[in-house]
Amino acid sequence: MKKLINKPEDVVKEALAGMQAAHPDLLRVDFEQQIIVRKDAPKQGKVGVISGGGSGHEPMHGGFVGMGMLDAACPGAVFTSPVPDQMLAATQAVNGGAGVLHIVKNYTGDVLNFEMAAELAAADGIQVESVVTNDDVAVQDSLYTAGRRGVGVTVLLEKIVGGLAETGAPLDQVATLARNVNSQGRSMGMALTSCIVPAAGKPTFELGEDEMEIGIGIHGEPGRRRVKLAPAAEITEMLAIPVIEDLGLKSGEQVLAFVNGMGGTPLIELYIVFDALHRILHGRQITIARSLVGNYITSLEMAGCSITLLRLNDEFMKYWDAPVHTPALRWGV
Amino acid sequence: MKKLINKPEDVVKEALAGMQAAHPDLLRVDFEQQIIVRKDAPKQGKVGVISGGGSGHEPMHGGFVGMGMLDAACPGAVFTSPVPDQMLAATQAVNGGAGVLHIVKNYTGDVLNFEMAAELAAADGIQVESVVTNDDVAVQDSLYTAGRRGVGVTVLLEKIVGGLAETGAPLDQVATLARNVNSQGRSMGMALTSCIVPAAGKPTFELGEDEMEIGIGIHGEPGRRRVKLAPAAEITEMLAIPVIEDLGLKSGEQVLAFVNGMGGTPLIELYIVFDALHRILHGRQITIARSLVGNYITSLEMAGCSITLLRLNDEFMKYWDAPVHTPALRWGV
Repeated sequence: MKKLINKPEDVVKEALAGMQAAHPDLLRVDFEQQIIVRKDAPKQGKVGVISGGGSGHEPMHGGFVGMGMLDAACPGAVFTSPVPDQMLAATQAVNGGAGVLHIVKNYTGDVLNFEMAAELAAADGIQVESVVTNDDVAVQDSLYTAGRRGVGVTVLLEKIVGGLAETGAPLDQVATLARNVNSQGRSMGMALTSCIVPAAGKPTFELGEDEMEIGIGIHGEPGRRRVKLAPAAEITEMLAIPVIEDLGLKSGEQVLAFVNGMGGTPLIELYIVFDALHRILHGRQITIARSLVGNYITSLEMAGCSITLLRLNDEFMKYWDAPVHTPALRWGV
Repeated sequence: MKKLINKPEDVVKEALAGMQAAHPDLLRVDFEQQIIVRKDAPKQGKVGVISGGGSGHEPMHGGFVGMGMLDAACPGAVFTSPVPDQMLAATQAVNGGAGVLHIVKNYTGDVLNFEMAAELAAADGIQVESVVTNDDVAVQDSLYTAGRRGVGVTVLLEKIVGGLAETGAPLDQVATLARNVNSQGRSMGMALTSCIVPAAGKPTFELGEDEMEIGIGIHGEPGRRRVKLAPAAEITEMLAIPVIEDLGLKSGEQVLAFVNGMGGTPLIELYIVFDALHRILHGRQITIARSLVGNYITSLEMAGCSITLLRLNDEFMKYWDAPVHTPALRWGV
């Protein structure tokens, strides 16, 4: 296992220490609770927005903590759900009296633990709303999920909803926007190689030298099919067409096009995929009004990519464009 | 070779098309000249700032084209210097009458070609100044270099000097700042794995399963030594101590600490390295006043990292903090 780590059991703790050392202006890490909290939380009268999930998907979610996006993130062990106590601590830490939104990717462990945390928070007098993202069109159920998995749309949703929450909007409005964003986005991913979980020390799955996995999950769980390697233009079609069709995108519509790297794929390749995606969308008279290209929801060092399309409306665009200041996304400030 | 590409010979061209499709608000690609130019270039009365080098180091340099950083970038084939004609075309495209600064990483091909381009530009009546970055402390000469190689400092220099150029400062002042930044920064890198150049189709070098290369160059050229794998804290010492000592950093000084990924290393590991670096600097009473963590000067999908330290003064900090709007770095706007 070739990794820049010390002991596997210290990976998450040390990475959090690195985040605190690199971004003391944006966030603080509560090492006892293992949560990352926006430096100026709680903001009185502002809806708190939190998310969480297994580590290994960096910069998601800790890299999205800051002004205009998340108020806190709860990192679990690598590819393992955080526990309800972390989620409760994060909820309490960001509660400014206006309630808290939980953004939950649809994985069984995350969903159950966030449900329990919401109940505990309610018992503590904090109003909580939850939104579960489930944008992955690859499979209906999976190894870790009943229903579709929550993947790339989560990144876009956290930015857009964080933008609205920053304006002081009430919890029901913030939660409604979150559900609307989730309903208008779809994703699909693929892998050229496996990843290696530090504690396991060996590849999560095996792929032949001439094979790839289409519809992969972000923990290396199987997708739709294992097929022979193909050129980037064909791979992009295999991902983009199911997304476009499931979303029912039509000529004349506008999208945010998000080409995401799984962690081990160089940026030059992601731009080749973006070029292919642009051709496909252009051919259908669908306009790319906003774009995001890079590693934002990753699977450790997996080589591969995912494509997310979000149908845009004026409200989504307004809050996508709103100022944000986090370790991984920053503009307008 | 597992890559998201079509034909190896189309990699650079298609990636450029992807950049244009993703960032039409920031840049335009001149496909005939193979250059990336800031959308609003040339700016009358502003010093043009350009750079260039082989592709495969993305986001450097094309991802740094935009307000407050580069006016143009010249991408060569993967790991191959661009040609003088590209550099001349970029110089002409950004010349707003106040002259043009060439930022050149110290590799023999780049240096010779930029020298020729500067002569051609001078013959065309354009005033050109050049700065050659040479911050890599690993080796004195290398496979492709007489003298030290230019690596991570180039990223920081392009941001800082771009910030000054944006104010309308004259060419001699811009060039002086560039040389000052180069003189105050040092870097060293390491690799856990090789990269694969698309046209070659096989790893640039071989590393055993329990080996790493310390002092690697950004094209996979050899470094100081090949040693057994070690924990991240030890690796960080192997990189940071030579940098600190060569720079003569002393207690009480402030630095910009830049932990750069080589392309295939996940962000969670880069933060572990940042944590280790923070401990080393803290132990020497050196303050991290600014930081940058991520993939900014890469070697395709190589796993590994580099550490760059830049001794900060008020001027460097002022222009580091100045607004920037490029595909890869953005703040203040």
